Amino acid sequence: MKDTNRTVNEKILEQLNWRYAVKKFDATKKISVADWDTLEHSLILAPSSYGLQPYKFIVVTDENLKKELTPAAYGQTQIADCSHLVVVAYKKVLTDADVEHFVARIVEVRNTPRESMKDYENTMKATAKKNINEGTIETWNSRQAYLALGFLLETAALLGIDACPMEGFNPAEFNRILGLDEYSAVALCAIGYRDAKNDWMANLPKVRFLKEELIDRR
Amino acid sequence: MKDTNRTVNEKILEQLNWRYAVKKFDATKKISVADWDTLEHSLILAPSSYGLQPYKFIVVTDENLKKELTPAAYGQTQIADCSHLVVVAYKKVLTDADVEHFVARIVEVRNTPRESMKDYENTMKATAKKNINEGTIETWNSRQAYLALGFLLETAALLGIDACPMEGFNPAEFNRILGLDEYSAVALCAIGYRDAKNDWMANLPKVRFLKEELIDRR
Repeated sequence: MKDTNRTVNEKILEQLNWRYAVKKFDATKKISVADWDTLEHSLILAPSSYGLQPYKFIVVTDENLKKELTPAAYGQTQIADCSHLVVVAYKKVLTDADVEHFVARIVEVRNTPRESMKDYENTMKATAKKNINEGTIETWNSRQAYLALGFLLETAALLGIDACPMEGFNPAEFNRILGLDEYSAVALCAIGYRDAKNDWMANLPKVRFLKEELIDRR
Repeated sequence: MKDTNRTVNEKILEQLNWRYAVKKFDATKKISVADWDTLEHSLILAPSSYGLQPYKFIVVTDENLKKELTPAAYGQTQIADCSHLVVVAYKKVLTDADVEHFVARIVEVRNTPRESMKDYENTMKATAKKNINEGTIETWNSRQAYLALGFLLETAALLGIDACPMEGFNPAEFNRILGLDEYSAVALCAIGYRDAKNDWMANLPKVRFLKEELIDRR
């Protein structure tokens, strides 16, 4: 593994250091179909608790819709200037029907006998109910969505594609404009290509705490 | 971009399809120092809201400690059998002192004049207070930790290293055993190498909803 991974290690670290939260995109550059497919599949392939995938990703490329959304993100220019705007939305509840829909998908993909899934199904339903009763269902589901956002951001970096994850927006307004009801917008990710000449952030060194502060080895 | 990225696209999709939540690790296989360094730096380089990094990652390799933690993860064998156990912990509060510590780090890394940071500092302090007052500080901070967990998982997959993200454990017990106080354990990630022969999950097809269900193009 060591030898095979040497260049992969270097490439990953190079790209994770290269990325930054872009303030100014080059509005003339668009992501290719092949690259976008990989980005989309990174969201789809991200793991989630029990595999329940309690989220949805709204991908906005329509220029008029991007303009309409801009005021709800406090006028930040990344919304209109990026190539693809991903609105990360989590499911506000998890019903028995949601669990059954997922179980049906397992049965379909794996050709598993439906009845062999009963224990797993009951566990998932009980966990969903526990989270609903304790008022933590939105926290639980939105955390899963952030993990998927991590996959999107890392894949973008590896492809040399720029991104800006954003929490500075009005979720209620985004939900209204996009017609979201069962889901709620929780984060945005503008994706495209940096306008390095006009982005004062582009060449600043990355700020992270010391390794010793973030990593505690036992 | 299209031509340059063609093989990168294929490699990423291949590895994200290759990964799965390992149920049975090969306890004899350990992650190399070089690979571990890349995994650790993926956590460190992950972006977070304002850059505040409200989390800590406890990396457990001590076999006795892994055994001690196992009952608090309901006896799941991944804890003891993996090479490195990462305990993802988020900060339970964000104080003015935390923000000031971060601002001091920006000043240090970027050689920015301290006084030019005042507006940004005040915005961060106000956002932290708003989250504390609204009871959402733990949700906010833990979401950032999940994004970093996403980076860890994708990097592992790219390196051909196995992982199992886990929420099935008792956070209070983990906090007690690890002596966590300002931070709280929110997810585990066992990392190592799959025991493919003894893991019934190893060869099952991945279950994901249809692309049309997860991705909503506008």
